[in-house]
Amino acid sequence: MCVKCDYTIHRASHHFGWNRDFEPVLTAKPGSTIHFECLDSSGGQFNASSTVEHVKTMDFGKVNPVTGPVYVEGAMPGDALKITLRHFEPSGLGWTANIPGFGLLADQFEEPALHIWKYDAASMTPALYGPGGRVPLKPFAGTIGVAPAEPGLHSVVPPRRVGGNLDIRDLAAGTTLYLPVEVEGALFSIGDTHAAQGDGEVCGTAIESRMDVEASIELVKDARLQSPRFTTPGPVTRHLDAAGYEATTGIGPDLMTAARESVMRMVDLLAAEHGLKPVDAYMLCSVCGDLRISEIVDMPNWVVSFYFPRIVFN
Amino acid sequence: MCVKCDYTIHRASHHFGWNRDFEPVLTAKPGSTIHFECLDSSGGQFNASSTVEHVKTMDFGKVNPVTGPVYVEGAMPGDALKITLRHFEPSGLGWTANIPGFGLLADQFEEPALHIWKYDAASMTPALYGPGGRVPLKPFAGTIGVAPAEPGLHSVVPPRRVGGNLDIRDLAAGTTLYLPVEVEGALFSIGDTHAAQGDGEVCGTAIESRMDVEASIELVKDARLQSPRFTTPGPVTRHLDAAGYEATTGIGPDLMTAARESVMRMVDLLAAEHGLKPVDAYMLCSVCGDLRISEIVDMPNWVVSFYFPRIVFN
Repeated sequence: MCVKCDYTIHRASHHFGWNRDFEPVLTAKPGSTIHFECLDSSGGQFNASSTVEHVKTMDFGKVNPVTGPVYVEGAMPGDALKITLRHFEPSGLGWTANIPGFGLLADQFEEPALHIWKYDAASMTPALYGPGGRVPLKPFAGTIGVAPAEPGLHSVVPPRRVGGNLDIRDLAAGTTLYLPVEVEGALFSIGDTHAAQGDGEVCGTAIESRMDVEASIELVKDARLQSPRFTTPGPVTRHLDAAGYEATTGIGPDLMTAARESVMRMVDLLAAEHGLKPVDAYMLCSVCGDLRISEIVDMPNWVVSFYFPRIVFN
Repeated sequence: MCVKCDYTIHRASHHFGWNRDFEPVLTAKPGSTIHFECLDSSGGQFNASSTVEHVKTMDFGKVNPVTGPVYVEGAMPGDALKITLRHFEPSGLGWTANIPGFGLLADQFEEPALHIWKYDAASMTPALYGPGGRVPLKPFAGTIGVAPAEPGLHSVVPPRRVGGNLDIRDLAAGTTLYLPVEVEGALFSIGDTHAAQGDGEVCGTAIESRMDVEASIELVKDARLQSPRFTTPGPVTRHLDAAGYEATTGIGPDLMTAARESVMRMVDLLAAEHGLKPVDAYMLCSVCGDLRISEIVDMPNWVVSFYFPRIVFN
C-alpha cells in the first residue's frame, strides 16, 4: 500500500496494445503520484510450478498487459509527460523463457525453455539461477508509454516514439522519463515489470515479474520532444560491476550481425567456463549482460561488445 | 621508465597499417613485459598551439602509427595472444577533432573543429573542456592488434578479427585482452592512445593523447578464438557514473539509424541546457558519452540509448 499516493489502479484495469480510443481508467491532475498494480508480461500465465510445457501452450493474446490508461488533465499533443519512477514492490517470483521465433539468436535456439526465479522481495539479494550463478536484481518497468496519435489498435511489442515496450533497464527507481504526448490526456500506461535485465534483453525475456509501481506524473507544456529521454539520479550498473566483466566482441560493417556475434561468443564462453547448456547461458545473458557499441566510426567495421558481469559467478 | 619491463620499444619504431611482412622490431618470449612508447593518432601533428587550420592540412598518411611489431616466440596461427595492460603513462596533452567525412554524424558536421586538452598527467583529475564541462579521464589504447594472415598492406582504420583499431574504451589498465593469432610470431603492435573516450567514439576522435604503455604478453596455445575478447578486473564506468546520466534514445528497425538519432538528440539537449555549439556538444559526446543497445528483440523496433554522464557539468 502506498500512503503517499493520490490514486491506486488495480491490476484488473489493464489493456492489451495501444489505442487512442481506450477509455481512461483514471483522470489525474499533473503532479499526482499513482500506485500502479502491474501484471507480469505473461498476464499471470506462469507460476512457481510452471514448466517448459507452459511456454509451448502460452496464449500470446494475453501478452504484455499494461495498467492504465491514465488521462492526464491538460496534456496536449506537443507536450511531454514527465514520469518519475518512485518505488517498485516486486512479487518475489519471476520467469525467463526462450520463446521460439523471438530473441536475438532465435535461429539458433529454436526449442522453448523456461527458468522460474524465486527471489527475496524484501532484501532483493542476488537471485539464484538454477543452472548456475546468482543475478543481482534491479526492478524496472519494461513497458511504459502513452497512446500514439494514429487511430486504431497498435501492437504492444514494438516500442515507438511515444514509448511502450522500451525495455530500457535503467527505467528503475529514481529515474525520470520524458515521453512525447501525441493525444489529448496523453493516456499513460505501465507494465511488463522486470526484476532484472541486461542492456539488449538478448533472449527476448528478462526476469519477468509481477510488481507494483509508484510513479509521479507531471506535464512539460510544449516540450516538442522528438523521442523518449530519461535522467538517472545516480549510477546505473553498480549492482553488477564490482567484480568487473568478461566481454566478447563482434566486429564488422553491420551492427546487428556484430551484436549477434558478440552474444554467440559469450554463450560459447559461459558454456565452456561454467558448464552451462547453451540455451541456459543465452537466457542468463539476457537477464544480466550488456550490449554496448564500442565504436561506430572506424569505417567500414564497427565493434559491438557484450559485457557479462563476473559477479554472477563470484 | 619501467623498471619491471624486459624490453622498451621506442616511439621511432612504429608502422602504418598492418602487414604480415613487416620486419619485427623485437623478438620476445611469452611472459615478457614490454614498455611501448606510443605516438598519438596524428603521429605528432598536433601540439598545444594547434588550431583548426591544422585539421584542414592534416597529413592522413601519418595517421594511427602503432609501435611494434613484436614477434612473440612460439606464436602460431590458432593460438591466442593474451595481453595484460599494466600501466599507462599519459603525456598531459591531448586533442579532439571533428574531421570532415569522418564520424557518426559526418553529414551534419561538415566543418573541421579542434579542441586541445591539457590535463594533469600525475593526478589525472577531470580535464577542463574549453566550451564547458570537465571530463573524467581513463587512459587506454585505441589500437591494439596483430597482423592479419592475408598478405599485403591493410589499412589501420577498420578493426578486424585480429584486433587493430578497436577503440574499446575499457582496454585500460588492468584489462586482459585476448586476440586470435593468424601469423607465426603474431606480430603485435599498439598505439592510438586515448586519455578518455565514450562507448561509440561518436565524432570519430577521443582525447587523442601520446602516452607510454606497459603490457605483458602471454600465449594461449591452440585457443581457437574467433574474435577478440577481454576481461576487466573491476568496474568500468565508475569514473563517470557517480552523478548519474542524461540519456536520449533512438527507436526504430535499424540500429545505425537509431544510434544516430540518439546522438543527435543528445547534441540538441547539451546545446539547449549548457549553451554549447552543436559541434562542441558532438565532440564532448565522443569523449565521455556511451552508446548502449537497450533492447534488440522487440520486433521490429530496437532502442539505442546514448548515456551522457552528468558529472561532467556538476
